[in-house]
Amino acid sequence: MNVLIQPDDARLTVALQRPALDAGKLTETVNNVLASVKLNGDTALFDYTEKFDGVRLQTLLVSEAEIEQAGKQVSTSLKSAINQAKNNIHKFHAAQKRNEEKLETTQGVTCWRKSVGIERVGLYIPGGSAPLFSTILMLGIPASIAGCKERVLCTPPSKDGSVHPAILYTAKEVGVTKIFKCGGAQAIAAMAYGTASVPRVDKIFGPGNQYVTTAKMLVSQQGTAIDMPAGPSEVLVIADEKADPAFVAADLLSQAEHGADSQVVLVTTGEKIVQAVLDQIHVQLAALPRKETAEKALANSVAIVVKDLTQAMQVSNRYAPEHLILAVCNAEETAAQVVNAGSVFLGNLTPESAGDYASGTNHTLPTNGYARAYSGVSLDSFVKKITFQEIRPEGLKNLGPAIEEMAAAEQLDAHKNAVSIRLKSLEK
Amino acid sequence: MNVLIQPDDARLTVALQRPALDAGKLTETVNNVLASVKLNGDTALFDYTEKFDGVRLQTLLVSEAEIEQAGKQVSTSLKSAINQAKNNIHKFHAAQKRNEEKLETTQGVTCWRKSVGIERVGLYIPGGSAPLFSTILMLGIPASIAGCKERVLCTPPSKDGSVHPAILYTAKEVGVTKIFKCGGAQAIAAMAYGTASVPRVDKIFGPGNQYVTTAKMLVSQQGTAIDMPAGPSEVLVIADEKADPAFVAADLLSQAEHGADSQVVLVTTGEKIVQAVLDQIHVQLAALPRKETAEKALANSVAIVVKDLTQAMQVSNRYAPEHLILAVCNAEETAAQVVNAGSVFLGNLTPESAGDYASGTNHTLPTNGYARAYSGVSLDSFVKKITFQEIRPEGLKNLGPAIEEMAAAEQLDAHKNAVSIRLKSLEK
Repeated sequence: MNVLIQPDDARLTVALQRPALDAGKLTETVNNVLASVKLNGDTALFDYTEKFDGVRLQTLLVSEAEIEQAGKQVSTSLKSAINQAKNNIHKFHAAQKRNEEKLETTQGVTCWRKSVGIERVGLYIPGGSAPLFSTILMLGIPASIAGCKERVLCTPPSKDGSVHPAILYTAKEVGVTKIFKCGGAQAIAAMAYGTASVPRVDKIFGPGNQYVTTAKMLVSQQGTAIDMPAGPSEVLVIADEKADPAFVAADLLSQAEHGADSQVVLVTTGEKIVQAVLDQIHVQLAALPRKETAEKALANSVAIVVKDLTQAMQVSNRYAPEHLILAVCNAEETAAQVVNAGSVFLGNLTPESAGDYASGTNHTLPTNGYARAYSGVSLDSFVKKITFQEIRPEGLKNLGPAIEEMAAAEQLDAHKNAVSIRLKSLEK
Repeated sequence: MNVLIQPDDARLTVALQRPALDAGKLTETVNNVLASVKLNGDTALFDYTEKFDGVRLQTLLVSEAEIEQAGKQVSTSLKSAINQAKNNIHKFHAAQKRNEEKLETTQGVTCWRKSVGIERVGLYIPGGSAPLFSTILMLGIPASIAGCKERVLCTPPSKDGSVHPAILYTAKEVGVTKIFKCGGAQAIAAMAYGTASVPRVDKIFGPGNQYVTTAKMLVSQQGTAIDMPAGPSEVLVIADEKADPAFVAADLLSQAEHGADSQVVLVTTGEKIVQAVLDQIHVQLAALPRKETAEKALANSVAIVVKDLTQAMQVSNRYAPEHLILAVCNAEETAAQVVNAGSVFLGNLTPESAGDYASGTNHTLPTNGYARAYSGVSLDSFVKKITFQEIRPEGLKNLGPAIEEMAAAEQLDAHKNAVSIRLKSLEK
């Protein structure tokens, strides 16, 4: 971890620089996969699955029997934990529902909005040794609350053609309508274009490797919406003099274990705390199975010592972290100054992992500085807010002349005429 | 206008097909412009403005004196119309504000969201003979309500180096902080990267030609957010047997005059009404200054006769129009079936131009079928919804074990440890 004591602006800029993402190199490879799936549908999916996942499948759709079997393989304690997380995530996202009132903007002119669930959504869940079932909760629960009718899940199979039971169990729990054994860029293509097995969806959500995120970016240019642009996961911890170095170290490590490209930043008002945190990292790191990954991420990470909490928040807002932990005494006051962040964790007893799994907030968040303009996934991500308006005769008389005046000034005569012809009919 | 009587599925698919958008051809040209602005800043902007707008400027920023002068050149009647529209748009967008309550998801675990204005937004307003000041209202008003601090506007100058008074007047009225004489892809580059004159922004809004929309798409892949992907403007009118053919014709024409690529679709339950509408189009078209443009758009447009309103809504939801006009007796009942649309206009007295200018709803809407997954611009487009959580000792005891269980199952030991180490401290 590089330590910077009260750096000037130029050094701060360098320290907060993120690694450049270069999708360019992968674009050609991924474009070929997209084109092949578009042309050959399921055949391409079976071939790619054999090539990349090492298994020749006979069918992509996970059967009811497989789902039932999975339910028996998940431990009672994990089921109970998933259920507790599910309840919290459901509560928090259901509270985002809103019925908007109709509004009379001018007498006789009524306007309103209505949230309508996106009809068909696709959730992508990566494969690998660890089953990321928590992401199914984060995407499947709001999709269900929003009323999305078709909720498809794609995830790569293991070499024996199976999917991890925790994934199947969680998918069933949140009401995913169809689960497919299909991963990588080919899964994104399948959901974007549709194949005989996999239905075409309107919006694709979920994390993935570089091939998956490149595929999402490419299909988003062709008309399929995506949740948000991707980047490596990040945490910025602001710690004051009284923060517990062991807690801070644990939080930095929990980000660092995600991947070698994980971004970890410590901003502190206490110069002494830096060494204490480094010592704690050393101790805790030794016991971690993902030690090597975490070490790589920490090699690129930085600790910045600043004058006070105001300056700390300036650094944080400038960096716009995905996760922001406020390990400070008066966390609420500091939180009020947050302008750019994905999700914020207040106080010494609120680790990022609470939000990653179970507090109720969503863990699909903007990385790579996108928190300056993007929000994390929420109920909003699964609905369209359609506007409506209805004008009565009185309203047209009140508002019509203004519309005519403006349309004329923009030299759009047909726009003006659509009002004039109606106003004339009211004179009769 | 091509007329289809109760087409089968295959013919309907062809009829509702939109023209393919091919950004590929422009990408290289626009990438060169982006690179040049990134490298040479203001110098590139002055050069491109000379090349494309035919004027060598000395300064890009519009002066206070120019803005003041513009205020004197706008007629009182236009000012009054703009003011009426502004009030409605303000009312409708201010009503979208929402203070969300804190929520205790588990005892001792509190979660909430806070809307924070995007700090720096850029509005692009195209040039040309007609000043599109209405778009300034649609973007500038919610940006102001959201509390975006820097609200930059770029628009190309005329050959004499001036900007249309209606643009300057409206920009001042909605509180745009800086106006620049700069158009095309170079303006998008300036706002995405920042130059000595033009501040870098976090999100870019507004319509434009192919160069502008390609530039927006390209910078959106590099980290600057954009309002939404672009496509030609569209209207779908559903008319029953009692709809007024003159009104329907006026609405179709007001879309057709936008551009030769405008998409115009009539869906009706009354076969007779089609001819009456065609006759009315013929009559009204003759008087339009943009007759040629409208004729071209109409040549590619289609009228579809269906069995009943349910079928009409099926066609509309399948097409997912930017604008949907319900010229039917029981518009409210039909509106309840809308699943995919940008903005909906109910009844015979609600023309699209009402929403284009002054009813209060936003006119920046998803085209090209994007209404399946995207909403139009709203207050939401100018804020980030940041999530917060705070856990008290009781909350960590209640929720901690579930987080530990899930983190262990995902093989993320450091995530688990961030909770365990805190739980242990509570035992002391």
